[in-house]
Amino acid sequence: MLNFESDYLEGAHPQILRNLLNKNMEKLTGYGEDFYTKQAIKKIKKTINNSNTKIIFLCGGTQTNLIVIGSVLKPFEGVIAADSGHINTLEAGAIEATGHKVLTLKNSNGKIAPEELDIYLSNFFNDQNNSFKVFPGMVFISHPTELGTLYTKSELQQIHNICSNYNITLYLDGARLGYGLMSDNTDVTIEDIAKYTDIFYIGGTKVGALIGEALVFTTKKIDSLVTRVKQFGALLAKGRLLGIQFDTLFTENLYFNISKHAIQMANLLKKGLIEKGLKLYIDSYTNQQFVIMDENRYKRSKEYIKSFYWCRHDEDFVVARLVTSWATKEEDVFELLNVI
Amino acid sequence: MLNFESDYLEGAHPQILRNLLNKNMEKLTGYGEDFYTKQAIKKIKKTINNSNTKIIFLCGGTQTNLIVIGSVLKPFEGVIAADSGHINTLEAGAIEATGHKVLTLKNSNGKIAPEELDIYLSNFFNDQNNSFKVFPGMVFISHPTELGTLYTKSELQQIHNICSNYNITLYLDGARLGYGLMSDNTDVTIEDIAKYTDIFYIGGTKVGALIGEALVFTTKKIDSLVTRVKQFGALLAKGRLLGIQFDTLFTENLYFNISKHAIQMANLLKKGLIEKGLKLYIDSYTNQQFVIMDENRYKRSKEYIKSFYWCRHDEDFVVARLVTSWATKEEDVFELLNVI
Amino acid sequence: MLNFESDYLEGAHPQILRNLLNKNMEKLTGYGEDFYTKQAIKKIKKTINNSNTKIIFLCGGTQTNLIVIGSVLKPFEGVIAADSGHINTLEAGAIEATGHKVLTLKNSNGKIAPEELDIYLSNFFNDQNNSFKVFPGMVFISHPTELGTLYTKSELQQIHNICSNYNITLYLDGARLGYGLMSDNTDVTIEDIAKYTDIFYIGGTKVGALIGEALVFTTKKIDSLVTRVKQFGALLAKGRLLGIQFDTLFTENLYFNISKHAIQMANLLKKGLIEKGLKLYIDSYTNQQFVIMDENRYKRSKEYIKSFYWCRHDEDFVVARLVTSWATKEEDVFELLNVI
Amino acid sequence: MLNFESDYLEGAHPQILRNLLNKNMEKLTGYGEDFYTKQAIKKIKKTINNSNTKIIFLCGGTQTNLIVIGSVLKPFEGVIAADSGHINTLEAGAIEATGHKVLTLKNSNGKIAPEELDIYLSNFFNDQNNSFKVFPGMVFISHPTELGTLYTKSELQQIHNICSNYNITLYLDGARLGYGLMSDNTDVTIEDIAKYTDIFYIGGTKVGALIGEALVFTTKKIDSLVTRVKQFGALLAKGRLLGIQFDTLFTENLYFNISKHAIQMANLLKKGLIEKGLKLYIDSYTNQQFVIMDENRYKRSKEYIKSFYWCRHDEDFVVARLVTSWATKEEDVFELLNVI
Repeated sequence: MLNFESDYLEGAHPQILRNLLNKNMEKLTGYGEDFYTKQAIKKIKKTINNSNTKIIFLCGGTQTNLIVIGSVLKPFEGVIAADSGHINTLEAGAIEATGHKVLTLKNSNGKIAPEELDIYLSNFFNDQNNSFKVFPGMVFISHPTELGTLYTKSELQQIHNICSNYNITLYLDGARLGYGLMSDNTDVTIEDIAKYTDIFYIGGTKVGALIGEALVFTTKKIDSLVTRVKQFGALLAKGRLLGIQFDTLFTENLYFNISKHAIQMANLLKKGLIEKGLKLYIDSYTNQQFVIMDENRYKRSKEYIKSFYWCRHDEDFVVARLVTSWATKEEDVFELLNVI
Repeated sequence: MLNFESDYLEGAHPQILRNLLNKNMEKLTGYGEDFYTKQAIKKIKKTINNSNTKIIFLCGGTQTNLIVIGSVLKPFEGVIAADSGHINTLEAGAIEATGHKVLTLKNSNGKIAPEELDIYLSNFFNDQNNSFKVFPGMVFISHPTELGTLYTKSELQQIHNICSNYNITLYLDGARLGYGLMSDNTDVTIEDIAKYTDIFYIGGTKVGALIGEALVFTTKKIDSLVTRVKQFGALLAKGRLLGIQFDTLFTENLYFNISKHAIQMANLLKKGLIEKGLKLYIDSYTNQQFVIMDENRYKRSKEYIKSFYWCRHDEDFVVARLVTSWATKEEDVFELLNVI
Repeated sequence: MLNFESDYLEGAHPQILRNLLNKNMEKLTGYGEDFYTKQAIKKIKKTINNSNTKIIFLCGGTQTNLIVIGSVLKPFEGVIAADSGHINTLEAGAIEATGHKVLTLKNSNGKIAPEELDIYLSNFFNDQNNSFKVFPGMVFISHPTELGTLYTKSELQQIHNICSNYNITLYLDGARLGYGLMSDNTDVTIEDIAKYTDIFYIGGTKVGALIGEALVFTTKKIDSLVTRVKQFGALLAKGRLLGIQFDTLFTENLYFNISKHAIQMANLLKKGLIEKGLKLYIDSYTNQQFVIMDENRYKRSKEYIKSFYWCRHDEDFVVARLVTSWATKEEDVFELLNVI
Repeated sequence: MLNFESDYLEGAHPQILRNLLNKNMEKLTGYGEDFYTKQAIKKIKKTINNSNTKIIFLCGGTQTNLIVIGSVLKPFEGVIAADSGHINTLEAGAIEATGHKVLTLKNSNGKIAPEELDIYLSNFFNDQNNSFKVFPGMVFISHPTELGTLYTKSELQQIHNICSNYNITLYLDGARLGYGLMSDNTDVTIEDIAKYTDIFYIGGTKVGALIGEALVFTTKKIDSLVTRVKQFGALLAKGRLLGIQFDTLFTENLYFNISKHAIQMANLLKKGLIEKGLKLYIDSYTNQQFVIMDENRYKRSKEYIKSFYWCRHDEDFVVARLVTSWATKEEDVFELLNVI
């Protein structure tokens, strides 16, 4: 059975497991104070070309989102997101559980359109009767988005400028950041991300790690971060588990190389699907591809291919998501194109 | 440098890493729906001799405590703990952050005395003016306690009965459960734990796992557990990481065997310390030993031994905690006894 | 200057102040245990023809909403509301601050359409991948709505049935309930409200009281209500303040009589506006009227009439809200119609 | 039946009701923007001799406490209180429900001893392992305390200095402030309170108002206060209800005059009790007196006198609280002394 359901099907990139094994019996200080965690932080700072940041490693995307939003916003503030944003749809109300409203803007291919954001904020802050409304205190964007799309550098700059104008924090969810940065169709670098956002995270779980996200505070100051993270139950006693993984991922470009592989596989897949006459739901240049199939074809495909049911397209057609990763084999892509 | 600072100094028991490696490229369903997680759950149910339980794997102790307490209590209820209890002292207010008060009883060697609990509850529920007070809805105990002490079976039964009488949930924190169960000086089995508590967890992080705790709901019913855990940001995409580890720990008694080793090392350590004329702060039969040293000796010892500064004993003496684990080597214990 | 900005411009109906004065020096038990509170509860139970309810008096609408929603929902549940619903727009994120998401449906003239609700719930509960989504645990409706519109008895029954089918709590916000019940264009009685909802509240602040809302749990069971209300800081030491007011309002039909007066004034106003050729934004039969004016006319009107700016209608026209109440004088309505 | 159970037995001082009645039909802007609220704020600023403060009126003490603590503390901070403090004992966990731990110090006659506070803070901030503990971010004191005792000016200054040293907010709960200020045995003025605290509130509910507390931010800056208060459900549409009351209380020294009367009655009571040979539980110079009675005497007294059962003193004796207020009649004090 072929399986293109997600990018978290396998364990970790083998180099990561090898390093965990090699250092296994070293006695290390707990709670993120170990040598490997410190080394990983240094390497990330070098990679993003910004040594003046605060970095901490966490376990998962929802956890990272709720800690950032729950720690940075004032009690009366909410977070703006695209209506398709992960925090609005698939995080079980985790953001609201920290006390904050998710304020939604209609998405444009999964993204927030800068002009829509500007209108929203301008309307809010020019409204003299806004004191009973939820104050927008943060903008949440995903890169790539939940639909596999990417912000352009210009869009990112615009959103950055708008947020600056209104003194609002810009936070970028990079659960699949590697796959976005290695896309053939992007002008955004990791240095740009670090430059134009106040907070972002580099996703590990979906990009080769067993578990782990690297949360980076670039401009945004936050005090007592370890205490805050502990309070959310998110501080690992064995911080080495995250430190060694990110140390490995940011050694010899591993994070980027394995992301590049996933993009190559996705490109192959996309090209093949189009050649077979299939239509795509969205023009994605990252590792998530969304293919439209009539129901019969979809049902048949399920005998050979595990995909992720995305949504119904119309009466006769459905959308299935096919995902590549660092672990995807070329032969599996060819076989998928053969049997779909 | 000898290091007896804690039981989370190394990575994982090698068998765990081998299994993670062996199964690394298997494509598995995410979020705890994989084969190994299900198998681990089965093995734990068999071990505790209770198939009618709900089990889920989480990442750490504080996380487990806040999810249990935050999910089970009604908004106006609090949780009773010994004043020395971990949730009261060293979890950064994680319980209060879920909205609940920790109601403290003076500890007896780290434990809650059944009679004190009974008096507290009797006073509370007989008080006709209790409606502005925090209702006790749960009792939290640790086994072993933060001081390395253990409840007897009789104490556990008594606390169970008191909780039943008042219809209060009994929750047991087993961060170091293995070390408690394998102590030479206990009549409590894991089946007793499962029988006399409503909820408990089997600690993995401190007993051989890289990360992970097995949370067991025995009698207590809880709905939509996965959604609740997701909301707390505690659900791992790669549930395999926890599943494979607990599957390994509960295969061929590994969890108990490695715990037994730690106890043997602790016994050796304890005996040696006493023979050297050192006094112990508390009579512990588990893997944490608390030794009283005059300040000069303590300072000198720090050149050779990493220990955990516990507290000041009096003007001249301090208490240091020495901890053994599944990974402690006999030769290190002898060397410690030599140089201390 | 005429003032039709809201229905909370004056103090209280004079009969209420007289009763507060008459009973002022009586020594009464605090916290809602006084004679007048108990008497008011009895009278309300009789009025709604349901003695098997739990009633408590609170201070304001937002407070009542957040206590109900924060007390009744499970942590992972959200509340469904029309996107125009007060809890979604003008309560400063009070619901989210209790940890719960407001799930919005597009409003139909301020109301939730039963069929839309049914589709939403059917989609949710038939979705096998719903475990990361916010579970709908309650439906929030306002009667009258924020746009002055009213549910028909049939709509109320349908929504009741849908909620029952999915085992979801139906909660009705009656901030202006009296004005809804006394409308010429409704077939809904207060007995219907009590029959078809699980929880509702009878608004006092906007219907003649100085302060106060009567919260009624009809079918929904809730334990330790006083403790919960105390925890929200909403329990008045001098419960008499609320008890005496509701006792007065539910004596000799005062609540309904003064509501009737507001409706008569609103009808006069509506008829007059139409006769003057003005268009109405919505066909309201309650005490809130929404009139469309070109900008010049609106600006001129502001010299004589205080109204509430509702929204922009199009490039040239705006919508102003004019509100009558128990205190509105007929001569003021005539003068308004003269000068507008 | 005599009733000395509390200071919230009657309605409001008659002058307050007269003013509510006189201004009843004036149409006033809502939500605290009315003329009387503004005037009351001006008068309070003048009384405390500090025009550079932010003042808002709220409904009750628990509400005020939870809004202050929930708004000012950072998520990882807790509030220090005497173990006998109201927020620790009788507010149904309202503080914890906002996410913050109450950190307790053993009380000295209901007060926090400055030296104990200093030791606590010094220990905390000198502890290099404090990052998993709850950070003290505020000190909560009551004046008078729950035991009727008063801080001296020197104690207040010391606590102020300690808080300043550690950059911690000092918040004073003045539920019965008037009775404290008018005590014969105090050197603390309201100007001192405003000078030495960062936040305090002037209690109205227990000092002549129907309802209401005046919350004063002296040095502590807080943004968007109205939005925060709205979010807690604590903003009254008819802000006049609070504004007119405090305008009345701070006109011609009413607040202080009626407090003085309560003190005179308490002095009479205290003197009489002592003359009758009764022992007092605590040497209170405010309106709460705590008398020790043997159980028979207490039981007999209950036939004639409503008092508040405080606690058991020993096997044979209990403590009853007797409270005077602005409304206490001299003849009732004499009668009480006669029959007790």
